[in-house]
Amino acid sequence: MPHTVCHAPSAMLIDGWADDVLIIIDDDGMIESVETGAPAPPGSVRLAGPAIPGMANLHSHAFQRAMAGLGERAGAGTTDSFWSWREAMYLFLERLGPDEIGAIAALLYLEMLKAGYTAVGEFHYLHHQQDGTPYDDPAEIAWRLVDAAQHTGIALTLLPVLYSFGGFGGAPAESGQRRFVNDSDAYLRLMQALDRARDSGVRLGIAPHSLRAVGLSGLTQALAFVDDSTPVHIHVAEQRREVEECLAWSGLRPVDWLLEHLPVDRRWCLVHATHVTAGEVARMAASGAVAGLCPTTEANLGDGMFPLGAHLKRRGVFGIGSDSHVSTSPVEELRWLEYVQRLRRRRRCVVSTRDVPHTGEALWRSGLAGGARALGQGVAGLQPGAPADVVVLDADHPSLVARRHGQLLDSFILSGNGNPVRDVFVRGRHVINRGQHAMEDRITREYVEVMRAMAG
Amino acid sequence: MPHTVCHAPSAMLIDGWADDVLIIIDDDGMIESVETGAPAPPGSVRLAGPAIPGMANLHSHAFQRAMAGLGERAGAGTTDSFWSWREAMYLFLERLGPDEIGAIAALLYLEMLKAGYTAVGEFHYLHHQQDGTPYDDPAEIAWRLVDAAQHTGIALTLLPVLYSFGGFGGAPAESGQRRFVNDSDAYLRLMQALDRARDSGVRLGIAPHSLRAVGLSGLTQALAFVDDSTPVHIHVAEQRREVEECLAWSGLRPVDWLLEHLPVDRRWCLVHATHVTAGEVARMAASGAVAGLCPTTEANLGDGMFPLGAHLKRRGVFGIGSDSHVSTSPVEELRWLEYVQRLRRRRRCVVSTRDVPHTGEALWRSGLAGGARALGQGVAGLQPGAPADVVVLDADHPSLVARRHGQLLDSFILSGNGNPVRDVFVRGRHVINRGQHAMEDRITREYVEVMRAMAG
Repeated sequence: MPHTVCHAPSAMLIDGWADDVLIIIDDDGMIESVETGAPAPPGSVRLAGPAIPGMANLHSHAFQRAMAGLGERAGAGTTDSFWSWREAMYLFLERLGPDEIGAIAALLYLEMLKAGYTAVGEFHYLHHQQDGTPYDDPAEIAWRLVDAAQHTGIALTLLPVLYSFGGFGGAPAESGQRRFVNDSDAYLRLMQALDRARDSGVRLGIAPHSLRAVGLSGLTQALAFVDDSTPVHIHVAEQRREVEECLAWSGLRPVDWLLEHLPVDRRWCLVHATHVTAGEVARMAASGAVAGLCPTTEANLGDGMFPLGAHLKRRGVFGIGSDSHVSTSPVEELRWLEYVQRLRRRRRCVVSTRDVPHTGEALWRSGLAGGARALGQGVAGLQPGAPADVVVLDADHPSLVARRHGQLLDSFILSGNGNPVRDVFVRGRHVINRGQHAMEDRITREYVEVMRAMAG
Repeated sequence: MPHTVCHAPSAMLIDGWADDVLIIIDDDGMIESVETGAPAPPGSVRLAGPAIPGMANLHSHAFQRAMAGLGERAGAGTTDSFWSWREAMYLFLERLGPDEIGAIAALLYLEMLKAGYTAVGEFHYLHHQQDGTPYDDPAEIAWRLVDAAQHTGIALTLLPVLYSFGGFGGAPAESGQRRFVNDSDAYLRLMQALDRARDSGVRLGIAPHSLRAVGLSGLTQALAFVDDSTPVHIHVAEQRREVEECLAWSGLRPVDWLLEHLPVDRRWCLVHATHVTAGEVARMAASGAVAGLCPTTEANLGDGMFPLGAHLKRRGVFGIGSDSHVSTSPVEELRWLEYVQRLRRRRRCVVSTRDVPHTGEALWRSGLAGGARALGQGVAGLQPGAPADVVVLDADHPSLVARRHGQLLDSFILSGNGNPVRDVFVRGRHVINRGQHAMEDRITREYVEVMRAMAG
């Protein structure tokens, strides 16, 4: 089959909405051409509703999906701060081996696809066995993530994490961090072991965990190992305590430190960047780095509010991540990214622009542009040269009925609790059909069995 | 049938969770008794999962469901403030007659039931024809709301609105408000016409719209008309401009004005109360009035953030409302009520208490206690004397699997995007069965037809 021809009644293209859209997909699953105002030719795949590009999820720790909702208890065994929540997370992951993580990741990626994510960046730091001993294959767990992505069909950018220390200035790692720790040599061996993942269509990046966990020499060595188109992700300035510790250690705030010491540019994703000054925002925006915002996790963990208005005013770029997976839907991330800004600033339609006045559409377009950049996906959106990552909406859903074009996205993102995602294609592969995945029953059953076994 | 016996594998009772719970329901649909640690007797109704009490939705404007997501556009025809959004809403309702409103309300109540609401307070201000002329029956539209509640099975507290003026100090109503306006005499006729709604199990309250729309004499007359167990709801201090106008008019802020001039007590619900000083919070909490919080609407409209922590510290009571219906799920209201406080205060588990350490459970219990009080429902929860309003969760849902008791509520409220509500009973009537309502297809079809006709 040389190519597939899809026909959509309407579609959100790079420069606006169009009706009667033909999308020609080559046999690699890439968009070859897009035509508008064209009837459906015989033999074409008729998409059952308006088509929009799939969303990129730039920040995931897959295993955390299994503990979503479990760290919400005050009092004894309190989880009422980020740091006590982190202790609970360290305890939880002692129960997880490769099989468990594979089953959890498969369910997670299935949920993401059903919600409209077509690509995910896996910020993967869980490398070793429960007692801290490396597996025979240092990429043992990473392969489970690759398998889960392949089975479900989501596009994966794997970001193996370099984690060397337990705190600023090279403090030794704590016992709870023993499954994460690699020195630079071990990290390079891990990256080498993973190189063949590219054969399965996986994109590779690097992820120095944070300035708490990696020093300048580790960062420099990791950067020297990769070419200058490789994504670089790092957690930064998520918590005030982290900012204070960084100031005490270096005299600089975390984002300032990064921009001062490293060649931060468009291939970088600064995850969270919650606590930033106006000066840091201006320099971060100018660098071309993506602000990796994780609205539901940042809210759940009580991190604080990113100054999105200032970032956008400086033409800063952002993408979204589901991070701890308390939510696995781009709708909730984008809706509350916007809403929190509305609450802060007491005005509406914060992310809309003159070019894209519909707030929901502006949120989707911006989140995809930044997310795709962060995941190393050169071209995104429904245009030639991009992967055919397509989400088809159910225009008859009560949330969307009688909406058109930009209104559809407003109602999709900013109203309703049901899920009007009908079909999802990733690189041309039809992975969600009428809201269901072909392997859904099996993936769900395996997840349920793993969860019961861990609890029992 | 003298009574029904339900058996739940576990249930959230007034004083905590219990396993193997028998709930005996009398032929009026009220809970007669509750037993724990009891096996299921022959002939009992076996609930398929953990049982929790249904949630009360204390603030609804049903017709606004149809415009959810439509007022999200900046630029020309901007809706980037509360006030411009309100203009868009006035325009929208010109298209609505009684049939349209009935169809919209039925879909809305269906969505609420499926999401776990079992009771709703309808703050009903759309009284007259499109040109402002009263209908022959002044309660014409109110009856459509009553019908929608009866057909779907949700418990209704009808709060007909007294709306006399267009602004503070008796400013004349604007053209866009012509369908709302009644003087006190017309309002009393409306209340009299609705009295027989009680025969259908509807609870009645009164709703002076706001200090913008009603003066002291109107408030006093309305209060004189009802007995002292009748709920009294009023919009107050939602927007800063309203606070400024109230100060200019009276020298007092809106909540201060209310507490100063009227006998505000437990039967009052102060809807929004967003912009309040520490002194107003202290007096409001001490009055026993319910703070009627509408987290998703207040975020969508950019209202601002209610000081929930201070209110709870003063033992203030709150309930939740879906208001404009950009969301129709108690999960999103409660989740983001908590999350916005976490973001403000940079700590977790804000609403949990020593007695109820699980945050999700604390949110559900608090929201129900305040909501039931605001809706004039004396006793609530799974206990004798309360209506048998029961939500049964699907414990095998990937969001809930391997969770127990308080953890179930944490995971239900604070994680996931799917809907694990399996069954819903209202006054003993089984209205949602395996996630579906018996009239779902018809109600959805009628809503879709109404929406298409209005757009076309």
